[in-house]
Amino acid sequence: MKNFIFYNPTKIVFGKGQIARLPELILKNQKIMMTAGGGSIQKNGVYDQVMRALEGYDIVEFWGFQPNPEYETCMEAIRKAKEEKVGFFLSVGGGSVLDATKFIAASLCFDGEDPWDILSKGAPVQSAVPLGCILTLPATGSESNGNAVISRRERNQKLAFSSPEVMPRFSIIDPETTVTLDARQTSNGIVDAFVHVMEQYLTYDVNTPLQDRQAEAILQTLIEVAPQVKADPKDYDARANIMWCATQALNTLIGCGVVQDWTTHMIGHELTVLFGLDHARTLAIVLPAVMRHQRVQKRDKLIQYGRRVWGIQDADPEKVIDAAIEKTIRFFESAGNPTKLSAYDIPVADCLIAAERLSGREGKIGERQDIGREEIEAILRLGA
Amino acid sequence: MKNFIFYNPTKIVFGKGQIARLPELILKNQKIMMTAGGGSIQKNGVYDQVMRALEGYDIVEFWGFQPNPEYETCMEAIRKAKEEKVGFFLSVGGGSVLDATKFIAASLCFDGEDPWDILSKGAPVQSAVPLGCILTLPATGSESNGNAVISRRERNQKLAFSSPEVMPRFSIIDPETTVTLDARQTSNGIVDAFVHVMEQYLTYDVNTPLQDRQAEAILQTLIEVAPQVKADPKDYDARANIMWCATQALNTLIGCGVVQDWTTHMIGHELTVLFGLDHARTLAIVLPAVMRHQRVQKRDKLIQYGRRVWGIQDADPEKVIDAAIEKTIRFFESAGNPTKLSAYDIPVADCLIAAERLSGREGKIGERQDIGREEIEAILRLGA
Repeated sequence: MKNFIFYNPTKIVFGKGQIARLPELILKNQKIMMTAGGGSIQKNGVYDQVMRALEGYDIVEFWGFQPNPEYETCMEAIRKAKEEKVGFFLSVGGGSVLDATKFIAASLCFDGEDPWDILSKGAPVQSAVPLGCILTLPATGSESNGNAVISRRERNQKLAFSSPEVMPRFSIIDPETTVTLDARQTSNGIVDAFVHVMEQYLTYDVNTPLQDRQAEAILQTLIEVAPQVKADPKDYDARANIMWCATQALNTLIGCGVVQDWTTHMIGHELTVLFGLDHARTLAIVLPAVMRHQRVQKRDKLIQYGRRVWGIQDADPEKVIDAAIEKTIRFFESAGNPTKLSAYDIPVADCLIAAERLSGREGKIGERQDIGREEIEAILRLGA
Repeated sequence: MKNFIFYNPTKIVFGKGQIARLPELILKNQKIMMTAGGGSIQKNGVYDQVMRALEGYDIVEFWGFQPNPEYETCMEAIRKAKEEKVGFFLSVGGGSVLDATKFIAASLCFDGEDPWDILSKGAPVQSAVPLGCILTLPATGSESNGNAVISRRERNQKLAFSSPEVMPRFSIIDPETTVTLDARQTSNGIVDAFVHVMEQYLTYDVNTPLQDRQAEAILQTLIEVAPQVKADPKDYDARANIMWCATQALNTLIGCGVVQDWTTHMIGHELTVLFGLDHARTLAIVLPAVMRHQRVQKRDKLIQYGRRVWGIQDADPEKVIDAAIEKTIRFFESAGNPTKLSAYDIPVADCLIAAERLSGREGKIGERQDIGREEIEAILRLGA
């Protein structure tokens, strides 16, 4: 096991009706900026619940964060927050609203010239305005970590930063807020959580049997629950179990002491920037291609994954790997996420620029730092 | 899934050589009281590592906490801490030293008359002097929770309290500090962690498939690693995996949203008070008896436990339960903990007072609140 630090002070308040507990979680002596997306929280009643809970609080609202939140929108929010002297942010929505809120909270305390440097140059985040979260879409795990991903379309960039300073003080996770999610949002969330686990699990062994099994626990549960929520989108327990899986997938626990990959996410981000594909839709294409391309390097863990997660009993390890990849593909497809670029009419030739961009920026990636331009191109061709 | 709150802000600093990071974790502008047990940390070099790391700090030492830490010793430490105006506690040792330190830290801020009320009457802990931990014995999980158990022998009492105020600010978990543990301490730690998981797992189902699998992950890993550490007590990775299992067993994560039992611990505490048996030795006796006594009430989970944790394939569920109980007993025995009172020459008749004491104090216990005096007596007879 590798040495590690695990620190996760976010208070998780989980279950139905928990939005009413907001007054226990936020002090009144400060101006609160509620950040939100495009209006779904008005349709599903979450906005009303929040306003009822925060009656008597001094609140300003900022709407308009879209999936893959945009730098320019964040800068607008920063200007408004400065004007309004905001002392606390309450993100109400999915991971995109929350990621934007984290970047805003960090930017307000940033003493460099341009907060974009936090993303592009890894400029350190020394502090941030405190923030809390009401999660309405299980997927990113952002509700229980210090990560955020921001896009800047004018530059064709989608970049991440991470800091404990922007971990939410609390996250209210009420599964009832998710029963109105449509099939696409639901399957995207399941695939995103699944791939978060795979990035921390499908690498090489450094003797971490507990972390392996904790990762497998999440994968197996997602596999078990996905058809339940498809059959009945209003099934509270199925929604609850998916939400808890998505949080556990990226609260950094299963990543403790292990070797991590993140190739699939890095390539996926490029595809989102180039073609506007949903984040999870890129992952469903890239992960199976990475599994096939890295079949030799990831051999032992692929066999373990096939045997333990999918219960594949075949004595021939090569057949176990074949079946494991096939089952992963079928799981993504049946959740609702195609696993080929062709499903979106994207010619592979148009993607290859991603290999150049990504390897140019990051050098070699993957748990062995052996995936460069050529390898990324090969992975993209496998996803054709 | 039941509603829940999960809050665990303890920073875990895990791995070899991490004691040297103490200066990153403790501010210098305060007097530190280092609390410790009977001297094992002097023999294994941990004390020297701590003193080297804290050179230049203002430190006072308090030694002498034994297993099942005693109220009187805590009161002595409280007097000394007041005299010395201690601003931070550093617990160096196992769960007993840490539990004592938590009680001391809470007592110093307690504004009632007698801090014993925190334990005996559930008097609320409003605040506590901050504390940190260097763990040298994996077992209790105290390094990552707000729980403490204190004994008062003059009254034959062993009582627990829990408060987020006494959660360690940090816990340094260096597996190298545990390679000198003897076989008894090692097996006690394994059994304690195993039973912590069982108390939160072997109950009835409220649709928590992820928590179930996270619990099974810890059980399976303990079963896998226990023989490794027995074969080679200096095996760093085996020690590391046991430590991480013990922390995960009682950092409250697997208890989120589930129904919990704790019958085994409550009966076990009484046996420790009456006969001075090691905590984990009582658990190894009581858990198998609880499994047998609650066989009907715990039927579904016993079958799941047998199939998933022990891989018992028998089609007949009753045979799965029989084998699961048998395997649990053999696991405890082979770790080094007998599962019968007779192994310690304790006649069951001498134990029955525990049933009266416990039911008199707590009423009916267990996940269904259906274990009263008669049932506890029956459980004790099954452990004869």
